Amino acid sequence: MMTSTPSVPPGPAPARYLDDLQAGDRFSSAEHALDAAQIQVFAAQFDPQPFHLDPEAAKDTLFGGLAASGWHTAAITMRLLVTGGLPLAGGIIGAGGEISWPRPTRPGDLLRVDSEVVSVTPSRSRPDRGMVVVRSETRNQHGDVLQQSTYKLVVPRRARA
Amino acid sequence: MMTSTPSVPPGPAPARYLDDLQAGDRFSSAEHALDAAQIQVFAAQFDPQPFHLDPEAAKDTLFGGLAASGWHTAAITMRLLVTGGLPLAGGIIGAGGEISWPRPTRPGDLLRVDSEVVSVTPSRSRPDRGMVVVRSETRNQHGDVLQQSTYKLVVPRRARA
Repeated sequence: MMTSTPSVPPGPAPARYLDDLQAGDRFSSAEHALDAAQIQVFAAQFDPQPFHLDPEAAKDTLFGGLAASGWHTAAITMRLLVTGGLPLAGGIIGAGGEISWPRPTRPGDLLRVDSEVVSVTPSRSRPDRGMVVVRSETRNQHGDVLQQSTYKLVVPRRARA
Repeated sequence: MMTSTPSVPPGPAPARYLDDLQAGDRFSSAEHALDAAQIQVFAAQFDPQPFHLDPEAAKDTLFGGLAASGWHTAAITMRLLVTGGLPLAGGIIGAGGEISWPRPTRPGDLLRVDSEVVSVTPSRSRPDRGMVVVRSETRNQHGDVLQQSTYKLVVPRRARA
């Protein structure tokens, strides 16, 4: 997915209302440079396990070296989406979805998020909003997919004249 | 779910190997007290949207007041699981899963995580490990479910004699 046609370049973009979106619309975020210190600070607070905290101890684990918490990758992905990677009117308000981490996120990774609109569904009961399903992939500078997620967002409609 | 039989009390518990687990096993975490400052610090770094940053601005949004980023709820949930809420040998290593936030997490919420083993599947190709599916619910002090998640974990087997 998301490799055959050019996507919207990162940077300031007009915020989309539900009415502006259709399946297949694609967006790309700016980049975030991750280092070992960021990984360790997040892990110390939220995911204090040896493979997220200590490069030496991590060598003897399933990860074979220091790796970011999946929730850290998810949080950075959210930052990249909120700061221009997914320009939605009303912000990014998620009800939930699916998430997976096909490969570990490592120190030195440069993260970027590519997103694609899967479906757009106006609400039957609330004429001022609807549901948009988006699929996002978080990649590093080598193109490795570190996180895949598909999630439902509440998006407002344009006010009627 | 998770209300009919007593669960393992929070606190230090022997780490379980795959061989020790079966569907229906239940665990409860310690508690985490959340306040507005924590919500705002996390949001400033990872989810800088008005409804996570500014109590006044949040009043006019879908949330109707300051609410934690869903990824903040997820990160706190992970901390509660890692620090005794889900005592697994080898740590908590997730490949992914489903997550939803039925209600906003608010300042003043006291979070706790109740978890239940859904399935235990030894690996066919790797005799030293297997896959465990766990379902967790994060609740506040009123019993409101703030997050539901179901996820796959890699869990080691006991070494054979």
